[in-house]
Parts: sequence; structure tokens; C-alpha cells
Amino acid sequence: MAETLTHPLVQDGWFKETGTLWPGQAMTLEVKEILHVEKSLYQDVLVFQSTSYGNVLVLDGVIQATERDEFSYQEMMAHVPLNAHPYPRKVLVIGGGDGGVLREVVKHEGVEEVTLCEIDEAVIRVSKRFLPAMAAGFEHPKVKVHVGDGFAFLEDKVDSFDVIITDSSDPVGPAASLFQAKFFELMKNALHAGGIICTQCECVWLHMPIIKEVMSFTRKLFPRVEYGIVTIPTYPCGQIGLMVCSKDASAHIKEPIRQWTKEQEAKLCRYYNSEVHKACFVLPQFAKAALESIEEDK
Amino acid sequence: MAETLTHPLVQDGWFKETGTLWPGQAMTLEVKEILHVEKSLYQDVLVFQSTSYGNVLVLDGVIQATERDEFSYQEMMAHVPLNAHPYPRKVLVIGGGDGGVLREVVKHEGVEEVTLCEIDEAVIRVSKRFLPAMAAGFEHPKVKVHVGDGFAFLEDKVDSFDVIITDSSDPVGPAASLFQAKFFELMKNALHAGGIICTQCECVWLHMPIIKEVMSFTRKLFPRVEYGIVTIPTYPCGQIGLMVCSKDASAHIKEPIRQWTKEQEAKLCRYYNSEVHKACFVLPQFAKAALESIEEDK
Repeated sequence: MAETLTHPLVQDGWFKETGTLWPGQAMTLEVKEILHVEKSLYQDVLVFQSTSYGNVLVLDGVIQATERDEFSYQEMMAHVPLNAHPYPRKVLVIGGGDGGVLREVVKHEGVEEVTLCEIDEAVIRVSKRFLPAMAAGFEHPKVKVHVGDGFAFLEDKVDSFDVIITDSSDPVGPAASLFQAKFFELMKNALHAGGIICTQCECVWLHMPIIKEVMSFTRKLFPRVEYGIVTIPTYPCGQIGLMVCSKDASAHIKEPIRQWTKEQEAKLCRYYNSEVHKACFVLPQFAKAALESIEEDK
Repeated sequence: MAETLTHPLVQDGWFKETGTLWPGQAMTLEVKEILHVEKSLYQDVLVFQSTSYGNVLVLDGVIQATERDEFSYQEMMAHVPLNAHPYPRKVLVIGGGDGGVLREVVKHEGVEEVTLCEIDEAVIRVSKRFLPAMAAGFEHPKVKVHVGDGFAFLEDKVDSFDVIITDSSDPVGPAASLFQAKFFELMKNALHAGGIICTQCECVWLHMPIIKEVMSFTRKLFPRVEYGIVTIPTYPCGQIGLMVCSKDASAHIKEPIRQWTKEQEAKLCRYYNSEVHKACFVLPQFAKAALESIEEDK
């Protein structure tokens, strides 16, 4: 008989996502079955089947992806920077070991090569087993996978990519270095002229200080920086932000420079379309004011 | 010594919002102190002080408002319809017994009179005591309060209001009748020519069937109907929708016909501004496609 798995964050049939980055609040999901529990080299890995969100990947207690709502995040992380770039051919994804961003990147026919650099092989292995619709991204012939630290990977890369997407976990644990100015300098050096980066950058309802800090140092490194918002039910407060930076001072990040037809959008996307691209950069007044205050602080 | 209050939904110091409308998921908030527990004539009323969202009003187990994030909902429910109307003078709010929508409506100087029709006096009483920043709306000289059923209130009203805002709870319990076509007919009759209604209308991630149904019958009653989205951390999935309907076939609901200056927006609003007004009507591809399919079903 198979052993029944347990995990300390699953109690009385519910998973509860408490975290120091969102004190006093916690999303909970009802658990049908715990599918996988592992201490990898880097983090606590949990996969469970929920009763209403499909399979759920949890790293260090934080929901990374559910089968029901992952598409909004993956599509926006990929299509916003790629459609803001005039001719993206070489793409790097840092993190993103579930494969979901890869799945979206390869929808762009002009892309010739996508490299994924994920620090934790366990995330890739577990996603291939339990999140097949996301890990489908790994099957594409244009995809190359490198298991290793994103920071170290970038150190010798110069003028190598058109778009870099950082699909990281939160700035505690293995992803902490990915929120530092030095990491953004490395990404900048690794970009071709006119290159664009897109990084997961937390939530306006919870983390304005982090967002302001990242925007402050990216604005010193890149001539164009914009912050956008994606809604996703199973991330804290139901949304997450993207920091998008371009080396091209004339880039119109907020408007897609390339667009799919309405028919292609309907076929390729469930969240993204060219109007959503533009609207994601419209921020609630309080967030707009907070980010405008960076300019005034200078 | 004061008796320590208890409530079945507060266990081990946390409130958990389970609900039949969002099976398998539940927001939880850490409770500092339970402030009020009451069975009113219509519903279970709970107010608690949370550790990170201020005071929280809960009706029949569902979070209605927290002091920390209520502004996004109240501002959008009020300013979207009012700024989409050329000269709103007489406004009716149905539900909204916490006073938050009133507080926003009276920011429009041209408004001459706002009537609030709330079925449950307990909501008004409890909000005045525990949610003073919201209930401040009741203090304004332009405000008239009627305690009673919104459906019954509207039955003899003809050509009486420029804008009607339905700030209701979910379509189970006392607010169920407020999601029926008959109620929208009553609102239509109660509107002046060119009048606009704005009703809380659930979440695209959870309730597309409800949203499609409401849009289907409102499109038969009104020449212009649009659906917009507000983000708010403590509502299920972190967002809620607005159904906005106009009797004026030429109304541009998606664009504010009247705008505050940037300075006024910064002073009056924390979530709304004229760009947010427009962007809220841009829907994720899956929701856009679902609502467009109503046209095709005809």
C-alpha cells in the first residue's frame, strides 16, 4: 500500500499559505491529495492536487503555480516583453523551472532559441511529472535547459539575448539575489542593443517599498522602465507585478510593437491580448503616486 | 470584565472565508480581536480587528470591507458611473450600508442628493461604530437614508435618479433578488433619461456564468452595457466586477465624460483616476471571449 504523504502546511485537508511577505493574511486551498513532498538542495518542494485549482506547486510554503490560473502570469511574463521587442530571436528565462514561461515564449515564431536557467533541478523534474501542461514548454526543439544559478550563468554573458525573463520566487530564499541591482547589471550586459528584460516584481498592495527600490535602481541602468500588473487568484492579494526594462530609449514598452491578429490572440492566449498589454501598465492611483515619487526623490 | 466574543468562523486566531460561491478556496485573515457578533434580522454580522487589514466587516461569513483595501471598490463603484454621466445630480445607492460608497459619491460637487437604501439597519449601526472612515459618508448633508428593501423601494420610483449604484453582497441570502432581471427593470424605470446604473457583479475567475447571465438580460434592457474589473485583495480571487449600464445609446461608459484634474485625482482618490476608469474595462482574453460569445448566442 502506498504511504500517505503529509506536509506541515496541510492541516485538516487545507493548505495554508502564510508568509513573512504578507503578514496576517493567507490564501488557503482545499487539498484532495498530496502528490509530492521533497527537500531539494535549495528548498521545500510540495505538490498537491487541490479540489478546485488542479495541481499546485508550492516552494518553501509559497504557491508558485496552479493548473487553473497559471496562464495569466506565464502569458504576461512572456508576451509583454516579447511583443514590446521588434525582433526577439534569442530569449533567456531565469527561474521558471515549471516550464510555463517557455511554453508561452515558443508561441513567438520568430524566436530562434530559448535558454532556461533554473537553479533547482527538482522544480523541473517535479513539474514534468505533475504539471505536464506547463512542462510542455520543455519539449520544444528551440528550448535549451541549463541547471544552475542565474547570477553565475549571467556573469560571462555579453550581448547574447534579445529578451531576458526572470520568473523567480520571492526575494527570500534562493531568489534573493535576483532582486539586487547587481543582477540587473548582469542582465543588462547580457542583452543585445535594444534588449528588454521582464522580471516578476511583487504586489502593489503589499510590497511598494520593494517595487520602489527595484524601480529606482533599474531607472539608473535602463533608459525605459515600466511597471505592470497581472491578476492571478492564487498569488497573495490576487495579483503580481512585472518590471519591464528596455535598453532602447525610444522603446514603447506600454504598447506592443508587434501584435497578433484577434484570431491569433483568441487561439494562442487565455489572458493576454494587445489591449491587456496596454492596460496592465495603468496603475491604481496610490501605486502610480508612489512610483512617481521616485522621480521627485532624485 | 468584558466578555470575550467568539464566532464559529474564527478558529485559532484566524478568520476563514469559505463560501459556496468559491468552493475549495478561502481567504484567511489573522484576528487581533473580535469586536462584534450579531444575528440581525437578515444575516450574521461579524466585525473583527485584523492584525494587518484594520477592522473587517463580515456578513453571513463573507468579507464585505476591510479598512485597508475598501477604497478601491468604493471609489470604482462611485466614480466610474458618476464620471461616465454628464451631470449626475440625484444618486441612489442600494445596499452599501457601510457608507463607503456614499463617502465617494459626495466628492462629486454637482451631486445634489444621495439616497441610501439599505435593508439591514444593523449594517449601518455597526459600521458607524467600527468602520468610522467608511461611515463618514452618512454625515454629509446631501445624504438621505432609507432602511428597507431595495426592490420594494424602487417599485414606485419613476424618472427619479441620474445614477443608481447597487452595492450588494453576493447573490445568495438577502441580496439574491438584486441579481434578477426584474430588479434591473425597476432600476431602469427609476432612472432619468440618460441615467446610468452600476452594480457589483462578481468575479471573472469564479462566476462567468452569473456575469454572462446578468450581461444578457441587461443588454436587452439598456442600449449600452459594459463590464469592468476592480482589484481588491480581500474579495475572492482578489477582484470584483462592475456591470455598468446606460440608458443613453451614445454614452461612452468606458471613458469618463467628466474628469478631475491630476491634482484633484491625487487629492480625492487612492485607486481611481481617469486612466484606471478606462483600463478597468479591458478584460482578460478568456473573459472578453466569454462575453463576446453572448452576442453570438443571440
